[in-house]
Amino acid sequence: MRFLHTADWHIGKKLHGYSLLEDQLHVFDQMIQLAKQEKVDGIIIAGDLYDRSVPSVDAVERFNQMIIKLNLEEKFPVFAISGNHDSAIRLETGGPWFRQSEFHLHTRLEQAFHPVEFGEVQLFLLPYFEPSDARIYFDNKEEIRTIEQAMTVVIEEIKKQFKPEMAHVLVSHFFAAGSAKSDSETKLTVGGLDTVPLDLLEDFDYVALGHLHNKDALISDSIRYSGSPLKFSLSERKQEKGVWIVDVEEKKVDLSFHPLLPKREIKELQGTFKELTQQEFYESLDRKDFMFIQLTDRAVIPNMMYQLRKIYPNILGVERVYGRENDQKILAKEISVKQLSPLELSKQFFEEMTEEELTNQQEQWLNESLDAIQQKERGK
Amino acid sequence: MRFLHTADWHIGKKLHGYSLLEDQLHVFDQMIQLAKQEKVDGIIIAGDLYDRSVPSVDAVERFNQMIIKLNLEEKFPVFAISGNHDSAIRLETGGPWFRQSEFHLHTRLEQAFHPVEFGEVQLFLLPYFEPSDARIYFDNKEEIRTIEQAMTVVIEEIKKQFKPEMAHVLVSHFFAAGSAKSDSETKLTVGGLDTVPLDLLEDFDYVALGHLHNKDALISDSIRYSGSPLKFSLSERKQEKGVWIVDVEEKKVDLSFHPLLPKREIKELQGTFKELTQQEFYESLDRKDFMFIQLTDRAVIPNMMYQLRKIYPNILGVERVYGRENDQKILAKEISVKQLSPLELSKQFFEEMTEEELTNQQEQWLNESLDAIQQKERGK
Repeated sequence: MRFLHTADWHIGKKLHGYSLLEDQLHVFDQMIQLAKQEKVDGIIIAGDLYDRSVPSVDAVERFNQMIIKLNLEEKFPVFAISGNHDSAIRLETGGPWFRQSEFHLHTRLEQAFHPVEFGEVQLFLLPYFEPSDARIYFDNKEEIRTIEQAMTVVIEEIKKQFKPEMAHVLVSHFFAAGSAKSDSETKLTVGGLDTVPLDLLEDFDYVALGHLHNKDALISDSIRYSGSPLKFSLSERKQEKGVWIVDVEEKKVDLSFHPLLPKREIKELQGTFKELTQQEFYESLDRKDFMFIQLTDRAVIPNMMYQLRKIYPNILGVERVYGRENDQKILAKEISVKQLSPLELSKQFFEEMTEEELTNQQEQWLNESLDAIQQKERGK
Repeated sequence: MRFLHTADWHIGKKLHGYSLLEDQLHVFDQMIQLAKQEKVDGIIIAGDLYDRSVPSVDAVERFNQMIIKLNLEEKFPVFAISGNHDSAIRLETGGPWFRQSEFHLHTRLEQAFHPVEFGEVQLFLLPYFEPSDARIYFDNKEEIRTIEQAMTVVIEEIKKQFKPEMAHVLVSHFFAAGSAKSDSETKLTVGGLDTVPLDLLEDFDYVALGHLHNKDALISDSIRYSGSPLKFSLSERKQEKGVWIVDVEEKKVDLSFHPLLPKREIKELQGTFKELTQQEFYESLDRKDFMFIQLTDRAVIPNMMYQLRKIYPNILGVERVYGRENDQKILAKEISVKQLSPLELSKQFFEEMTEEELTNQQEQWLNESLDAIQQKERGK
């Protein structure tokens, strides 16, 4: 059986305020092409379909289109679970109908104990859950406090369903011990209480994980994070994004990684303001990419952001690699502050804070406001 | 073909702060029993399934249970639309899968032009829409400004799909001209621009409407509001709630109304405080009902709400039918106000506003606060 393994779609997520819906569609289209080309038998989505428990209407519409295309139009069986970013109950709407066309979407712990049988493979779809869910399911055993304790009894229960002649695949969404984290997975407790030791997972032929966005978070022949199909934070900018194609037979797994190309890359640009704004430099770039700009000069640059944005429409941020000149001038300025007029003082403050100069209109407003204040003062 | 016609479930709605989820389940169970007993061929739900565009998780869970029971367990075909309270896009999640088991849920205008053929009946499921939706669909015709103008072209388009040998049923959600309103349908523009004249609907064998909560809002042999299955506001307290059973053949309709019994009724209680709190009186009542209390006495009653709530746990409100005694005494009091101590004055104010007396603890706090203020005044 050949599966495409993906996870962490986070439909609706924004990158520094920029909508990624078009970017998400772009990699999704490649995913479908790949699935057809590689003739996969099914698609595994290991949680975090949405970015929020109450996704926006736009995100819902986009996700609906994708999953209709995948399951109803292209007729791929889909094996999916909810992740920690999803609302299990909201997501399960429609679940019982989805099954009719081999779209299996598990959102509750107990569903993991009813494997989906698909050819020679038993798929255990174990959604994200809290230790308290396991405590309730296993009759309030007080000893279940950590996710490790919970997973121990859950995996035990799952194994009771094993049919020995079949291959066993676990689809799940958690932090497996040994994995490394990046910025955009939130709320991971430090200290290991929320991690799951890998030896618990030994008896599965393949474990398809979601949660961590880096496909290399865990290097193993049979336990893998797919990573997210897109870069969702600056800290992910060097990660390769894509999906796994997995051939699973009993006691035998073949894995190959297939990259997906983003509509807009995350790029770092380093140089002086003058270099970055020279036409021969920026014309060689794909300026629709998301740019993280590292300025090497230290001088104050009037209207900096405005000028940069005219050239690079999707700026994620600007960093001054060596600090700014005026950081050293502050002391000297403090001394002269009392000699400046309120207008000069305000202008200087604005420029220091925004690295932009006041427009004529802004300067006029400022002047009028200062006048009004002074008149009021005199009136007292 | 025999249909059960219902609408305006408003799952998640609260009545003066009280959750109605249990009450909604209670009438839903009766609806299912009735559908089985009357051997209906399908269930029509004419919009406003939820009360809000983003229903609570509890509401989503309850609605999911109901619709699974109706369609997947009891195997009733369901013909439903979104109403003005629903988010069309959120609701349409799952729509394409629902169809596989004859659960037809239309949320977009254009779906109305693809009738569902069910035996000898063509069902046109026309969800709630705005004039602007019609303007876009019909190629930006500027003349479409009102819902009447929009419905004129929409109905015209629908009629093009009529198969003459079949019966034609319209399921929709709007304010038909001639209907009377109650409190809990919100944002109905006064003046008739948002109403649909009945003659537009003449060519249908049956029009199953939702929107107005009163089943008698419109009296007609072939155009009907089902009304809501529950009373959702005080103003609905005298309305009979239930569903229609409709037999539809070409050019022939038979209608019968079947009441549903609420778990908790809305009742009005009128009498003096003494009467209403007498055991022999209140023991004859079902005190779990929602009570709207009309007090006939005019005297100030200490701790009134507290005492009433001990007897009647679900009070919607208390009205003084003849006003309160002290309304007439205000003038006399105003004269004497200057002779009262701050403590007396505050106590009187509290009692007039709350109809309750200060407890000893409250009186002590008040005393301490007044002392503190006086000391501060003296310190100046």
